[in-house]
Amino acid sequence: MPSRLAPATRRSRPLPPSTVALNTLYLPELREMIATDDNESLREFVDALMPARVAEFMEGLDARESWRVLEVADPERRVEVFGYFEPEKQTALVHALVGDGDAAAMSGLVADLPADDRVDLLRDVDEHVVDELIPLLPIEDRRETLRLRGFPEGTAGSVMTTEVVCLKENLSVAEALTEISKQALGVETVYYSYVVDDDRRLLGLLSARQLVTHYLNPDQPISELMERDVVTVLAMDDQEAVAETVADYDFLAIPVVDDNRRLLGIITHDDIIDVLRAEATEDALLSAGMAPLESGYLRTHWFTLACNRGVWIGVLFFAALLTAFALLRYEEAFDSVWWLVLFIPLVISSGGNSGSQSATLVIRGLTDGEVSLGDWRRVLRRELLMGLTLGTTLAALGFVSAWVLTRQAPEGHTAPTLVEVAVVPATLLLVVVCGTVCGGLLPLMFQRLGLDPALMSNPFVAGIIDIAGIVIYVTVAMAMIGGLAGG
Amino acid sequence: MPSRLAPATRRSRPLPPSTVALNTLYLPELREMIATDDNESLREFVDALMPARVAEFMEGLDARESWRVLEVADPERRVEVFGYFEPEKQTALVHALVGDGDAAAMSGLVADLPADDRVDLLRDVDEHVVDELIPLLPIEDRRETLRLRGFPEGTAGSVMTTEVVCLKENLSVAEALTEISKQALGVETVYYSYVVDDDRRLLGLLSARQLVTHYLNPDQPISELMERDVVTVLAMDDQEAVAETVADYDFLAIPVVDDNRRLLGIITHDDIIDVLRAEATEDALLSAGMAPLESGYLRTHWFTLACNRGVWIGVLFFAALLTAFALLRYEEAFDSVWWLVLFIPLVISSGGNSGSQSATLVIRGLTDGEVSLGDWRRVLRRELLMGLTLGTTLAALGFVSAWVLTRQAPEGHTAPTLVEVAVVPATLLLVVVCGTVCGGLLPLMFQRLGLDPALMSNPFVAGIIDIAGIVIYVTVAMAMIGGLAGG
Repeated sequence: MPSRLAPATRRSRPLPPSTVALNTLYLPELREMIATDDNESLREFVDALMPARVAEFMEGLDARESWRVLEVADPERRVEVFGYFEPEKQTALVHALVGDGDAAAMSGLVADLPADDRVDLLRDVDEHVVDELIPLLPIEDRRETLRLRGFPEGTAGSVMTTEVVCLKENLSVAEALTEISKQALGVETVYYSYVVDDDRRLLGLLSARQLVTHYLNPDQPISELMERDVVTVLAMDDQEAVAETVADYDFLAIPVVDDNRRLLGIITHDDIIDVLRAEATEDALLSAGMAPLESGYLRTHWFTLACNRGVWIGVLFFAALLTAFALLRYEEAFDSVWWLVLFIPLVISSGGNSGSQSATLVIRGLTDGEVSLGDWRRVLRRELLMGLTLGTTLAALGFVSAWVLTRQAPEGHTAPTLVEVAVVPATLLLVVVCGTVCGGLLPLMFQRLGLDPALMSNPFVAGIIDIAGIVIYVTVAMAMIGGLAGG
Repeated sequence: MPSRLAPATRRSRPLPPSTVALNTLYLPELREMIATDDNESLREFVDALMPARVAEFMEGLDARESWRVLEVADPERRVEVFGYFEPEKQTALVHALVGDGDAAAMSGLVADLPADDRVDLLRDVDEHVVDELIPLLPIEDRRETLRLRGFPEGTAGSVMTTEVVCLKENLSVAEALTEISKQALGVETVYYSYVVDDDRRLLGLLSARQLVTHYLNPDQPISELMERDVVTVLAMDDQEAVAETVADYDFLAIPVVDDNRRLLGIITHDDIIDVLRAEATEDALLSAGMAPLESGYLRTHWFTLACNRGVWIGVLFFAALLTAFALLRYEEAFDSVWWLVLFIPLVISSGGNSGSQSATLVIRGLTDGEVSLGDWRRVLRRELLMGLTLGTTLAALGFVSAWVLTRQAPEGHTAPTLVEVAVVPATLLLVVVCGTVCGGLLPLMFQRLGLDPALMSNPFVAGIIDIAGIVIYVTVAMAMIGGLAGG
């Protein structure tokens, strides 16, 4: 965390000249305050800075020390600071406190967390700790937590929060403002309020912007101001699709409803940003042949990472092993034509690279919503044309390179003729076309099958092209070099 | 656009049952209204739906038709709907209108755009159109546009908007609300107001949340409520770093200041989301060996895409060509040991795959701010250990595979001994270690050199490993197979 916060903190004059180094330099003072039970200074520390900054300064403290600091803060501040801790630190704190028999104190904090964060946290802590905490929650929080835990990870329901400002349709601007100011403490955002009927069915959306703009007309009914054409999502919708919707519409939050359009909760812009960031990392890992990680590179346990990488490297290894079988089958060809072996890596890497480009373009197009399944004909046309163009270019380069290179035939070998050398460009053209077409269509096929198209990522496309490349190479060689075909 | 909006629109009952198909089904009606100059129906259409939805329904209209619809809308609505058009459509509209001599009408709309969107738009339209439009803008907008155009693309200054609510420190809650409601129409967000001194120096941040929460204490001075510890960025800061900061802090907007902490503008959450999405696509393209695109896959002109891909494929081709040189140098080895050739693709793809994994993990770690340059020792240690583990696993698999495979020696060849076969696992181990270590360190090196670490992406790491792989393979073979070493 220090590094990524560095730019912000460095530039935020004139308040504490906090830099990465200072984050830790401040630690001894904090520890001193804790050791001497200097609650006054601790409270001053917690209150003076923004919650995110306080969390940053507390980074080096262990779970027990952190709790000592949080203890002196008032409950609202405590929950805010806690919210900015890294998930690992939050989990450690819960485990330490509940382990020490302080489950009651912890349950207070857990109850104060926004519902979505509470559920996330309880997902990460040990099951027996959850069992200890949940009965200590106030009845309403308990019921809600159990309900939210029912939505599978990755759905809109699992990232929504249920703490929303709800208004009745018959309020005026002034009444709405009064109502919001009363509900404000318990909700995650006051920027959007939702107008619902007695059955909690969603009637409209009222933004704080509209309220503030009409502050000077306090008697205007909100039913005149509210937006009735509200875009909603269902609780079981995929969180990535929801994030794209919010991003497209520039919303601050999106309401989650059930089949009867009853308001279940909202997903706020910060959760949307988290989803978008997580999905970007996930897609990048998939595209390099790895399963998504729970936390970052350095934070993931070495063994977990090794298993994750090992499984995929192993799968790719067996795919690559097929090339060895193919080569064994064609051993004779390589035996009789000495220079064929030189261009094996060139041929397969050219195919793999063009395939990766196509796959990545189509996968990103699908993610950004620009490409859909219905576009497959356009994609096919584009990639065919692209393959022919790129392939022809590489073929020309390959022809010259192969000619020059094979002039230096080693002792006991003769240099190939012009026609023989043409095996290399012909192969390159075919392999590149094969690469672009497979790369373009495989992600669409995966999408069609209901799988994540990002799975059909660079290494897999490359693996398929590797084998295809060798088969094409030898087939072309056998067709173009007379002696070989006969042999 | 239709496809990516589909989930939202499909579920937004009970208003117009809009689906992708209906977007275009509605077109004839719109065209009919335009043809019959039915301004009343047009106005109703524009006013009834959310601006994003109106823009969606207008997708099939050409520039002239679109303008006829926008014309009937009141200026505020017009600018909102226009803001939801695709950039290409916006540009086309400007060109069509200015081309028809309607520069004055267009300049009104351009002046009404948020400053950041205005600058973006003017970046995309032809220079002579810009020259026609800018003199028609009101003096203040003109000055501001010219100033914002001075910030290079990719900086915080280039994405900020200057239309911000500014408040004096001595206001009360009620006075602040009144002031905001007066300024509201001209600004992009009312959710954050900035408290500045007479010199426009930033003193604090006041959120609409705090105002609404204290709505029932109208006389409370805002100086008691405002946040003084405001995180700011500089206009020349990189937009990606700014986006990460905002995402980390869950801000709705971040103020952009000059060296004297004078408020220049703000960057709002929707711009942040756009930056994050663009950077994710950019990194994905780089990691597949392509330069970032201005627009999406299908929208980029075929020729532009071919040039982009061709250049990189060409560079990678020459990298791969080095493997041919390496193989030529070692031709003798492959000539005298028949089975060596079988494992060339296996060796280089194993190295490439493990290198891609490491490179991607480190690049994502750098992007997410989890890994910094100072972590290079940890990265080295991790990747060395990872390489040894993965390498040993693959070596074991490779040993068995190579043994089984080479038992089927073709006529005239003898199967290799156990020691000879051990060349394959020994090579795999070394190549995988080389892959993980290079893959982990090269992005850090690029970062250190001030280059985008995503450049040191999968195909480049793979290209380097390809050559290293062949050199390692033959060197190990020469060392382990007696006859070869002597030959």
